[in-house]
Amino acid sequence: MNPVSGVPIVGVIGGGQLARMMIPPAVELGLQLRVLAENAGESAALAVTQLGDYRSAEDVLRFAQGVDVITFDHEHVPQEVLRALLESGVAVHPSADALLYAQDKLLMRQRLTQLGMPVPEWAAVDSEADLESFLAEHGGRAVIKTPRGGYDGKGVRVVSTASEVADWFTGDGPLLAEELVDFRRELSQQVARRPSGELAIWPVVESIQRDGVCVEVIAPAPDSSEKLTEVAEWIATTIAQELGVTGMLAVELFETTDERLLVNELAMRPHNSGHWTIDGSATSQFEQHLRAVLDLPLGATAPRDPWSVMVNVLGGTTENRYPAALADQPDVKYHFYGKEPRPGRKVGHVTAAGEDLEDVVFRARAAAAFFED
Amino acid sequence: MNPVSGVPIVGVIGGGQLARMMIPPAVELGLQLRVLAENAGESAALAVTQLGDYRSAEDVLRFAQGVDVITFDHEHVPQEVLRALLESGVAVHPSADALLYAQDKLLMRQRLTQLGMPVPEWAAVDSEADLESFLAEHGGRAVIKTPRGGYDGKGVRVVSTASEVADWFTGDGPLLAEELVDFRRELSQQVARRPSGELAIWPVVESIQRDGVCVEVIAPAPDSSEKLTEVAEWIATTIAQELGVTGMLAVELFETTDERLLVNELAMRPHNSGHWTIDGSATSQFEQHLRAVLDLPLGATAPRDPWSVMVNVLGGTTENRYPAALADQPDVKYHFYGKEPRPGRKVGHVTAAGEDLEDVVFRARAAAAFFED
Repeated sequence: MNPVSGVPIVGVIGGGQLARMMIPPAVELGLQLRVLAENAGESAALAVTQLGDYRSAEDVLRFAQGVDVITFDHEHVPQEVLRALLESGVAVHPSADALLYAQDKLLMRQRLTQLGMPVPEWAAVDSEADLESFLAEHGGRAVIKTPRGGYDGKGVRVVSTASEVADWFTGDGPLLAEELVDFRRELSQQVARRPSGELAIWPVVESIQRDGVCVEVIAPAPDSSEKLTEVAEWIATTIAQELGVTGMLAVELFETTDERLLVNELAMRPHNSGHWTIDGSATSQFEQHLRAVLDLPLGATAPRDPWSVMVNVLGGTTENRYPAALADQPDVKYHFYGKEPRPGRKVGHVTAAGEDLEDVVFRARAAAAFFED
Repeated sequence: MNPVSGVPIVGVIGGGQLARMMIPPAVELGLQLRVLAENAGESAALAVTQLGDYRSAEDVLRFAQGVDVITFDHEHVPQEVLRALLESGVAVHPSADALLYAQDKLLMRQRLTQLGMPVPEWAAVDSEADLESFLAEHGGRAVIKTPRGGYDGKGVRVVSTASEVADWFTGDGPLLAEELVDFRRELSQQVARRPSGELAIWPVVESIQRDGVCVEVIAPAPDSSEKLTEVAEWIATTIAQELGVTGMLAVELFETTDERLLVNELAMRPHNSGHWTIDGSATSQFEQHLRAVLDLPLGATAPRDPWSVMVNVLGGTTENRYPAALADQPDVKYHFYGKEPRPGRKVGHVTAAGEDLEDVVFRARAAAAFFED
């Protein structure tokens, strides 16, 4: 806490767009945000107070001095650094114990299975022979994931023979093999949880992926039965509680063609599938994350509009594009992350809202298209 | 413009809460904000890139280097500094010519009278004898204002004899004497205008003052006839156009007991009466100001809810108050400015919204009350 003003200080490890989007609610709530970034000029540059390596306990412990709570822009801080933080006495949310299941997909699968959560059929495969057995038992195709380090489709391959991931059998431990789920669509359920236990939940949303990257989110997920929304909420709140998640949790789900929900991935931080909440919910996921990690009461999560649609801008630029885009879509909210454009890179997103879903989708896509090459 | 990223750079002179509240939309839109503040630790500290004196052409010209447009947190930058900026070739919005009428109440009264705008009866009074004549013609009471430098009730006295402002006749020029308007309530009409002419207008709001300080704003102003809203819009758009205002303009209005509107004051920047737009409008006054001064197309101004009510927090603190306030009013949006609390000082505001005005007022006041001593 700032000793003069009594203002709580939140330290965020990682300087990407998720840290950046915590800046507006921190400014509005009158909180102080500090960011540990790897390099100057990252998305959250405005709030960066230290450059350093999140894998270095020394850098991270120095950053943590004087802050009230440490939280994260990403899930890559090693367990030993998290443990060192804990030992230093600083509050860390989410905790090392919880983060473990967002860091390691194999441990996540084991734990969720233990909890009775619905998950795709899976196995830890140690060798090509193991994988061939799994393939034989699952229709000859499977999704193979490296347990650690993957994101946005990286570290994931769909294979029909073990040789396609021969390069991943490096002796670093087993891979995760999962059945290829026959899904109707992908959903995402977001929930916030405070250390003292309070939960806040948003409506389940539909997340549209292309090449493993989220391109569009529709909130709430269209054509969702009451049962589907209840099951999605039950899954997310159970995981948040049983894993002791603090802050934001996103549970990515498959809705199967036979109307079941299966847990795909977990993220313990604000998530792309929740960006619509900045404009579309009484409390955004970024404000809620700050409130949750400070163990402050959570805000209301009611949607502001019948439909909100978020479209990612991949690889585009704002340079010279704003005049036409803003003139064409004055109701759309524009968000850019201050990132250098590279093909396929998420550099921003737009959100439209309204009563007619078709119109909302059209406006969001039209706005995003102005920035693409 | 940032030569590497092509991101426009907005320079704001003044580091108060208005500059602070430009930070969130600048972050979201991916703009770069630079702030010239007088002292370290002011409200907009996060975006401060230079400490200096806004009355010094040298400081201000140095600050202006490399920015795309200069704008303001307050109206106190001297005309000679504004002229020096203009000569240096940097875009300045609002311009020196427009700002003159927000800086000098006597010039404002002359100009608005010339434009045929409805204003209270007024006179420039050079002496106590002049003032006594004005008093005799206006029922024995009048409002006396120092033409320059007043705000939040400072520089304003209601008098019944000239001797009550004897100390203000210092030979620095005439004072402004105005009839004491018999008003039903105070209103505020906000409009944004781009250099290229586009206008965006919000609904007229009711502003409730105590001791010359705004304490509460109701948006839109209740019980407003179509004629009243049309006249308010006509007044604000005429002033914006005729005075060449760029960026935000707030026109403070008296609604008289005989149903006329009279112009009270002008502010050429985001204004306390527009803080409700952060949560209550499709585009906030802070985002709109940034778009307008960059001559970008303006955003939609539709209210998000039937009623929004903003209550200022005067002299309070967030320290230890958030847990109770957030738990009690999870739907209210909280805004604090990082200012040291002093009695009566505006340190933050809260906004509630909904369909039932009485309930919305209750919730906003209840939330604000948690922070007051």
